[in-house]
Amino acid sequence: MRPLNPIDFIFLSLEKRQQPMHVGGLFLFKLPENASDSFIHDLVQDIRRSKAPPAAPFNQVLSGLFWDVDQEFDLDHHFRHISLPAPGRIRELLTYISQEHSALIDRAKPLWTCHIIEGIEGNRFAMYFKIHHAMIDGVAGMRLIEKSLSHSPTKTIVPPWSVRNNQLKRSEPKPVNTLKSIVKFARSQFQAAPIVSKELYQAFTKERGKNPDYVSTSQAPASILNQRVSSSRRFAAQSFELQRFRNIATRLHTTINDVVLAVCSGAIRSYLLSINQLPKLPLIAMVPASLRSDDSNTGNSITMILANLATHKASPLDRIAIIQRSMQNAKDRFKRMTTQQIFNYSALVYGPAGANMLSGLMPKNQAFNLVISNVPGPKDPLYWNGAQLDALYPVSIVMDGQALNITMTSYLDKLEVGLTACRQALPSMQNLLNLLEDEIQTFEQLCEISTQDELKTTA
Amino acid sequence: MRPLNPIDFIFLSLEKRQQPMHVGGLFLFKLPENASDSFIHDLVQDIRRSKAPPAAPFNQVLSGLFWDVDQEFDLDHHFRHISLPAPGRIRELLTYISQEHSALIDRAKPLWTCHIIEGIEGNRFAMYFKIHHAMIDGVAGMRLIEKSLSHSPTKTIVPPWSVRNNQLKRSEPKPVNTLKSIVKFARSQFQAAPIVSKELYQAFTKERGKNPDYVSTSQAPASILNQRVSSSRRFAAQSFELQRFRNIATRLHTTINDVVLAVCSGAIRSYLLSINQLPKLPLIAMVPASLRSDDSNTGNSITMILANLATHKASPLDRIAIIQRSMQNAKDRFKRMTTQQIFNYSALVYGPAGANMLSGLMPKNQAFNLVISNVPGPKDPLYWNGAQLDALYPVSIVMDGQALNITMTSYLDKLEVGLTACRQALPSMQNLLNLLEDEIQTFEQLCEISTQDELKTTA
Repeated sequence: MRPLNPIDFIFLSLEKRQQPMHVGGLFLFKLPENASDSFIHDLVQDIRRSKAPPAAPFNQVLSGLFWDVDQEFDLDHHFRHISLPAPGRIRELLTYISQEHSALIDRAKPLWTCHIIEGIEGNRFAMYFKIHHAMIDGVAGMRLIEKSLSHSPTKTIVPPWSVRNNQLKRSEPKPVNTLKSIVKFARSQFQAAPIVSKELYQAFTKERGKNPDYVSTSQAPASILNQRVSSSRRFAAQSFELQRFRNIATRLHTTINDVVLAVCSGAIRSYLLSINQLPKLPLIAMVPASLRSDDSNTGNSITMILANLATHKASPLDRIAIIQRSMQNAKDRFKRMTTQQIFNYSALVYGPAGANMLSGLMPKNQAFNLVISNVPGPKDPLYWNGAQLDALYPVSIVMDGQALNITMTSYLDKLEVGLTACRQALPSMQNLLNLLEDEIQTFEQLCEISTQDELKTTA
Repeated sequence: MRPLNPIDFIFLSLEKRQQPMHVGGLFLFKLPENASDSFIHDLVQDIRRSKAPPAAPFNQVLSGLFWDVDQEFDLDHHFRHISLPAPGRIRELLTYISQEHSALIDRAKPLWTCHIIEGIEGNRFAMYFKIHHAMIDGVAGMRLIEKSLSHSPTKTIVPPWSVRNNQLKRSEPKPVNTLKSIVKFARSQFQAAPIVSKELYQAFTKERGKNPDYVSTSQAPASILNQRVSSSRRFAAQSFELQRFRNIATRLHTTINDVVLAVCSGAIRSYLLSINQLPKLPLIAMVPASLRSDDSNTGNSITMILANLATHKASPLDRIAIIQRSMQNAKDRFKRMTTQQIFNYSALVYGPAGANMLSGLMPKNQAFNLVISNVPGPKDPLYWNGAQLDALYPVSIVMDGQALNITMTSYLDKLEVGLTACRQALPSMQNLLNLLEDEIQTFEQLCEISTQDELKTTA
């Protein structure tokens, strides 16, 4: 028995029937060339017959304010084998995932389920893994599944939930009184107060005057992205060549990340225009960012950046320029702080937003309109009993006031995009996939034009 | 817009994440002999392309304390087409249903979903229909689906949710103030109070002395059937030949219903013995019963009977004798009352049990240990676009303190048994299916013995 981490506790508290707090991953595999007809059947049998016990956190069950080892672990509850009816297009797969991702996980059992889905066109099968955010970070969860796969096309593997890896669980409080550790957590929030206060003061006063694109936390406009959500989810996913973003970034002298944000911004703008719901003010995205501080040995830390998506601008080049400045501004500010200070800064700035989420009250002024997250993924091909991983898509959380989430990762040389939305709040959200492709093409055309212009002027 | 019926309101209030309040039906069809390979695909396409709008109650969505017509009806949310992986045994089908029946229905949409499941061995496919108890009675729901099927093997039909039938919805309060109608409902509970009081007095005093098997509402022993439930369900189902029950009933000079109860009782006894959980006192079943009062024109009405299952007796013949007397006793009592009086009597007697369910407090003394329900079903074969209905199984509700539900119906000359249980509370509950078969065989053997004995004495 170990006490709930304060963050675990928050994710459990936030959950309600129309707001499940689990994350997921959709993994698409190609059957090996020479695979027997019983390949998937054998793989499922291997899993069902595996003697490897579930490892933490997959064996942990809620017991009041504690995590405990599930003594009656029942694989049949967690593991599911299903088939898509012919023709088994990706469309049918995404419908299945949308519906599965809508359902709450049983709290009487370890908070995860795994689905093997066969019958997918193109000689493929899928794994959908769903796990409560209280058990694991979304990114760590994806990493854990990746860890369970092999770099070798000839190796067989144990079930993903039997892979031991302590580093992937978020750091635990020592097994002491939970209330005590929550109080301690709260107190640590305010230790670096003076430095944080100075930054906050600058953020809210000085910099606002200097930089017209600076985004404050109460600036995000009301939009249909920020309604109450129902419990029905829509999941849409697609892979894009990373090289396309890289080419655009090179031409426009910016980062791949900024191009990704600009493409998302353009697609969202078009979607909102198509349903006559574009706010006059620019949408604000919360972008979790990884920051390395060169003069410290704390390694990577993740914080949140508020990015101005400039959806009020019709020109893609205007949009990306504002996004770039907005991102740079936030990064510069964070460079002056230590990791702990950044954490506290974020907590203070996003505190009101978090309180709104917790209380369920819908704020008039929200800090941001949606989360856009992009996390690097594996660069080398991965295999499951010889079947190559073809694509992997993150399936994320939406909540009251946050009806759309865009989470991306990379695999090989592709950007893997997962869109999770409330089906009720955002009609035909899957259209965003085509709009993303349109927006990339728009940038590609613009870049070719500007390249020719450059050639002209240098000629 | 029409206000919620008080009963609708109660079912919605009772629902929580580990206690979904929807009922379901599993319908198993045989593909026609000459069916094309695309039979199911065509059927699904027919449904998806059908121009027939959803009829009440399938088009009704919650809007505060009212039902309203869903203006954004989205079939993709309600309708699902999936396949079982090979070999597609009934076991895999039941696993799928167990998992689907565990999930809450989205309250932002009309409260139902329909699944077409292909890939079932023996050239079969299934439909699983799930609907909130606030929208329709379980039995009425089954009837509605039956109504949507055809008596002719050559007729094509419209989707079940487009069939109009006003009689199947429970009677509605007039579209007036909801609070008013709830008050009116409560007041009507006590109109027949004097007659009911007399019956209650007799029930609790006089009859208790006369009849040792008389069951009072605080007599049910504590048992593992009466724990808090988790949100994981186990569904098990099987068909039995009705003739077998009929034969036993004839030999033992009792009713088919009493034999069914005795078989359930024996199976539950064996199951509880196998896990060392048999209470010393007999288990009490709540048996919804249809009563016709010959001197009134109110037709059929349904009330609840508490049956002593005599699980403390090792002998099947002792058990069935007690069950028979217990059922007869309750029926005699109800014969003296009008339908409205019966309703009020039931409300008063089961009131404390209902209050316990509503408050979520676990009573020390519960009125009954489980619900065993048996409702007559269609006697003639039914068809869906030429595919004959092979079997239909009711999937019911379990709740805190009621971890097992047995609901049965009949079809052609079979008894269709559906067992719904909390997976966490009742380990390997599906073993009950074999135990039911064992118990029928035990009675068959006993009857042959007693028949031979009879032959001997008459010879």
